[in-house]
Amino acid sequence: MKIYLAGPDVFLPDAIEIGRRKVAICDRHGLIGLYPLDNSIDLASSDASRQIFHGNEAMMDDADAIIANLTPFRGPGADAGTVYEFGYMAGSGKLCLGYCNDPAVYADRARRFTAVTEQDGRLVDGEGLTVEDFGLPDNLMMIHALELRGAPLVAPRERPADVWHHLAAFETCVRLAAERLATRTV
Amino acid sequence: MKIYLAGPDVFLPDAIEIGRRKVAICDRHGLIGLYPLDNSIDLASSDASRQIFHGNEAMMDDADAIIANLTPFRGPGADAGTVYEFGYMAGSGKLCLGYCNDPAVYADRARRFTAVTEQDGRLVDGEGLTVEDFGLPDNLMMIHALELRGAPLVAPRERPADVWHHLAAFETCVRLAAERLATRTV
Repeated sequence: MKIYLAGPDVFLPDAIEIGRRKVAICDRHGLIGLYPLDNSIDLASSDASRQIFHGNEAMMDDADAIIANLTPFRGPGADAGTVYEFGYMAGSGKLCLGYCNDPAVYADRARRFTAVTEQDGRLVDGEGLTVEDFGLPDNLMMIHALELRGAPLVAPRERPADVWHHLAAFETCVRLAAERLATRTV
Repeated sequence: MKIYLAGPDVFLPDAIEIGRRKVAICDRHGLIGLYPLDNSIDLASSDASRQIFHGNEAMMDDADAIIANLTPFRGPGADAGTVYEFGYMAGSGKLCLGYCNDPAVYADRARRFTAVTEQDGRLVDGEGLTVEDFGLPDNLMMIHALELRGAPLVAPRERPADVWHHLAAFETCVRLAAERLATRTV
């Protein structure tokens, strides 16, 4: 059973090492982790970004499931590339699991980046746009998609000191994937 | 032909009015616009966010295409809920179009929110994470998915004064959708 390992992990300085650790955890649970940086890309090519896209899409098409790292990235919510991939796997009918190393609810996350005030009974940001206030950690489409297509978002009780290298929530997702895939007729 | 109208437009103070304008533009081009706020949701219900999710997903399943508003939202990139929906429609094999009222490349957008420096030949943000530097306006997965599944991202030459109410790029997407869907056997 193959699991696509999506996340902004690929942007870390030690992106290759974190991928190795994730693949090793999958292996311990009898699963094959597919990590985007394992695609061979010619980064000097003018076509590099398109090669990365096609490599990632082929990996997703080959995978039975996705584990998405939805830890907030450069803003209050998850990384857009990861979210696109999560949506793509959901639309493809694949098993979807996700984790987030920041357990804060979305409105509190937004407060770190913008002034959040109450206007006419709704929370709004500095631009006057509504801040989602359902007590969920991120946009409702992702949170409920996980419940429907895999398992509720996995998050630690408290934010670990190093959100980018703490893999306990990731390992919980791997365990869930192994259980879910074992009971599926593929 | 039905088009799902995804975007953070639903978070605007005049979210209903912008939806009416978008649906009217679709209508002028012979298309049916499906706008998320047209779902009837009991916002007082403890289950409101789940009702919204199911309403949106049913609308997406009913649509032939998506037009995603990928204008940066509360950070350097597109709104996560919109990106999830875009991915979902891509995974479902539907026609995908998108527009963005900010033509800046991603690295320049990131500079508005974080200190971007060069380290070992790559751009990094304040946390040391790589800033995508392919000269694209947003994450490569979205940009190339549009090229493959619809048309390249539509963006104005210059950022309009009011990025949330300027609908010229949206209308270009509607025209492209009408052309593409007319030549498809559905």
